[in-house]
Amino acid sequence: MAYRREELRWNGWGLKEKTFDLRGRERELWAFIADVLGVKSLPETPAPSLEETTLPEPSLPASAEEALRSLLGERLHQDAFERAMHAYGRSYADLVQLRSGALAHAPDAVLYPDNAEEVAQILAIASEHQIAVVPYGGGSSVVGGVEARAENCAAVVSLGTSRMKALIGIVPLSHTATFQAGIYGPDLEEELQQRGFTLGHYPQSFEFSTLGGWIAARGAGQQSNRYGTANKWLVSAKVATPTGELRTRAFPQSAAGPNLNEVICGSEGVLGVITEATVKLHKLPGTRDIRAYLFRDFESGALAIRRIVQAGLPVAMMRLSDSDESYFFGTLKSKLKPPSAVTVAGEKALALAGYRPGEGQGSGRCALMIGIEGDAHDVRHAIVRTMAICASSGGAPVGKGPGSSWEESRFSMPYLRDPMMDHGVGIDTLETSTEWSNVQHLTTEVRRAIRTVLGPRAAILCHISHSYKDGCSLYFTFFFERDLEDPMGQWRRVKEAASDAIAEHGGTISHHHGVGRDHAKWMAKETGEVGMDLLGATKAKLDPAGVLNPGKLLR
Amino acid sequence: MAYRREELRWNGWGLKEKTFDLRGRERELWAFIADVLGVKSLPETPAPSLEETTLPEPSLPASAEEALRSLLGERLHQDAFERAMHAYGRSYADLVQLRSGALAHAPDAVLYPDNAEEVAQILAIASEHQIAVVPYGGGSSVVGGVEARAENCAAVVSLGTSRMKALIGIVPLSHTATFQAGIYGPDLEEELQQRGFTLGHYPQSFEFSTLGGWIAARGAGQQSNRYGTANKWLVSAKVATPTGELRTRAFPQSAAGPNLNEVICGSEGVLGVITEATVKLHKLPGTRDIRAYLFRDFESGALAIRRIVQAGLPVAMMRLSDSDESYFFGTLKSKLKPPSAVTVAGEKALALAGYRPGEGQGSGRCALMIGIEGDAHDVRHAIVRTMAICASSGGAPVGKGPGSSWEESRFSMPYLRDPMMDHGVGIDTLETSTEWSNVQHLTTEVRRAIRTVLGPRAAILCHISHSYKDGCSLYFTFFFERDLEDPMGQWRRVKEAASDAIAEHGGTISHHHGVGRDHAKWMAKETGEVGMDLLGATKAKLDPAGVLNPGKLLR
Repeated sequence: MAYRREELRWNGWGLKEKTFDLRGRERELWAFIADVLGVKSLPETPAPSLEETTLPEPSLPASAEEALRSLLGERLHQDAFERAMHAYGRSYADLVQLRSGALAHAPDAVLYPDNAEEVAQILAIASEHQIAVVPYGGGSSVVGGVEARAENCAAVVSLGTSRMKALIGIVPLSHTATFQAGIYGPDLEEELQQRGFTLGHYPQSFEFSTLGGWIAARGAGQQSNRYGTANKWLVSAKVATPTGELRTRAFPQSAAGPNLNEVICGSEGVLGVITEATVKLHKLPGTRDIRAYLFRDFESGALAIRRIVQAGLPVAMMRLSDSDESYFFGTLKSKLKPPSAVTVAGEKALALAGYRPGEGQGSGRCALMIGIEGDAHDVRHAIVRTMAICASSGGAPVGKGPGSSWEESRFSMPYLRDPMMDHGVGIDTLETSTEWSNVQHLTTEVRRAIRTVLGPRAAILCHISHSYKDGCSLYFTFFFERDLEDPMGQWRRVKEAASDAIAEHGGTISHHHGVGRDHAKWMAKETGEVGMDLLGATKAKLDPAGVLNPGKLLR
Repeated sequence: MAYRREELRWNGWGLKEKTFDLRGRERELWAFIADVLGVKSLPETPAPSLEETTLPEPSLPASAEEALRSLLGERLHQDAFERAMHAYGRSYADLVQLRSGALAHAPDAVLYPDNAEEVAQILAIASEHQIAVVPYGGGSSVVGGVEARAENCAAVVSLGTSRMKALIGIVPLSHTATFQAGIYGPDLEEELQQRGFTLGHYPQSFEFSTLGGWIAARGAGQQSNRYGTANKWLVSAKVATPTGELRTRAFPQSAAGPNLNEVICGSEGVLGVITEATVKLHKLPGTRDIRAYLFRDFESGALAIRRIVQAGLPVAMMRLSDSDESYFFGTLKSKLKPPSAVTVAGEKALALAGYRPGEGQGSGRCALMIGIEGDAHDVRHAIVRTMAICASSGGAPVGKGPGSSWEESRFSMPYLRDPMMDHGVGIDTLETSTEWSNVQHLTTEVRRAIRTVLGPRAAILCHISHSYKDGCSLYFTFFFERDLEDPMGQWRRVKEAASDAIAEHGGTISHHHGVGRDHAKWMAKETGEVGMDLLGATKAKLDPAGVLNPGKLLR
């Protein structure tokens, strides 16, 4: 399919025709959120339309425009919709700016090349005319990774990869497939699943992100325990750079020097434009199982995850919400659909057994979801083993219901952000990873940092989203009373405080969102001077004019 | 422990006091090998002693020597034994040169720093005086990775890391440990195992290789299905470079840019000296099982491996010998220890069932060993599942005997090479990896290339040593009537032909041996111009004087 641009929101999430299903219970929802934030009611803060929004004047030098137009013809766009669509990514800060009525930045043109050769030619023209090129896959970056800024260049173009969406080949015996990198998640999975395979990479942005974007941002899907993060499933890639094509070769494993796939992964468009990728596939699993457990506290849930992952059990996903997140989503669900009498009775029994729901005060039961996929024999074995470990860690099994409802709604949650923005609420996320021995400490410190900036009128939710033998990721979602006078200042203060806390207390600045503009300062700190020199030398060699996504990743 | 240098062979494998146990059956062994090679008898070709061997005059400039000596004192060595010991690695070509009576190259000095600070100071002195520095772990490189050549520098020193062998810390909760990188395999495992953990990295060189060497060469242990290759288990590292210390941070997973651990892995001492590393641990497995299966041919054995690995079953190791290798080692074993009547009867039954031993003619049964380790429940499950897959792929289970005897002898096999060298036999190995769809083709072509050079008086054995969802490694062992007039020319012709075949037919130039000097030409081909530029820029930035292991990896 690949979306037609006009189907998509230029200043919000996803498809225009789709909204978060509030089931006619708007009033209950907003009352609940106001209550959580401790405010009487929520204001109406609708977004200005595109017509009400000003964009900077396009400033592409005539000679560059001519060269690009003669290459691309109709595939060079300069209308307000395309420019606004490609001005920012889809972080909270991006939405604030897209809803401000005046875009400070927008691409001077949006380009849609058809193939790697055209990408190479665009890079040649851009290098010659000193035009910044922002590679743009699905545009779902939440770290400022696709923000269209010229920086030190004469102008800036956004390079949309969405026309490069072909399945190039599949090798069933080797469980690999090669695609052009601009293919969107749903198209990629459709191609694979009709042949009995899956890549299994399902980030929350799945519907609106691309293969190349997943690689460039070193992404992780929700079932990465089974399917791996992008750097695990990438077999080889072609990358257009101003100095020529960088190609890695498809080998299962090689000791022939550093692994350049791991340099391409996480390169965020500053070294080149990923045009093609070969990826590892799995057979479509015969059996899938998601079931939930409740724990009396976060520690015991984390213990269960750690034991399971360190035992090497073949789970696809483990996701542990802290008590505030468990409480918030549990209550949200009941606001949208009042619970049945059976559910209410079950709740009482659980509370009697000590699994008391939290009330947003930092203590109470925590929900763990465990997804297991694969051959029926292996799934059965893994269920038995994980149940035993959960039980011995203090977990109570609560069946398959929560897993199903999570699965149903997992791609629609981002649609809830836009209506929240319309009601004066700010909502942002951030994520990190750290080793097991540091999980409690880091969680406490990040939460403290966010709270210090936002004060009491904020809810801070956290979950473990990905787990490894040596540690796990921590994913924070927080919403708050938006400072309507200075929302960007408010955002910046939270970002600074939380990122400083992460850096100071042993976390990485990003587990899977990436670096972009927003995290560049902490990336440099984390990577150190010699590491940044190494990356800088690489950048200077491949992109001597410095036109590739300037200001991102390496600053 | 770390070895005392004088315990080790300067011109052969391992400990002086240890030899391959021929069980008093030398005559039968050499007659068998002569028979395999189609020659009447084998000549006596003993190695010259160190006293009979000439070394180049040491040529360290006085100012550099003074600076190094004032830093290291007694830890700078210039005696013939230390210099000869560090002149070459331990490949067949290295042995040929070490046994030639005249070493063309040797380090002008051998240095043993105690810590990262001293390494940094050595690099500063070397950069100032333009002295080549060859980082030397256990010296077991088989690709010319530690050959002491000055190249364009004024002189060359070998930097032995073996004094840097401390366990710095272990974090049981996170399953990680940090060591100085010069620690040898046995010492590392002893430290871990007495605490209930293992790294599980057992390359054939295990006893005589170091943590830093495993990382620098991007190595793979024999149980890498469970424990991972070096790039999988490396969490973070410290690397001394002439421009400062490169430190990576220990995170379970990060999206903060390219993964520099994957640049350190496989850097082979050309970017810096690895001084410290944090690695992922496993709990010592409660249960271990190695059992063997016979297949009527290589294809069906490879099919079983592919099915098992693609099903994601938790095996530790799968190793499939082709018919020639199965025949050779089976016969070798019976020459050293005549089989019992029970074994002979069993053999007959197997032959009747179609599992006929090959006779070195390229067809016949193939032996597969499957190792499984871990929690008893999981091992049991994996045994049941792998047995079923082997059965449905045409495999006959033959119990635990072959696995035990492989395990007993797996580190002593290299000791057989020296007596072979003493009998006019050449013996070399090479290895590659390729995707499943290309395994048969590549095997045929590599075998053909080797045979074309060596003619009929050679045996070419092959096994699959490591397996992945998308492909596997292919490990070739070949022995032959050595050209006593021009052994290096003979070796070079085989190397060229086999490496060209690998490059032309879809293999990587190395799965786990690395690049060194020997594979540098094919590394460049495989990596491509832009990739080599990228690595070259990195090298130029970190080592501007070009003193780090010149002529290796990047040429």
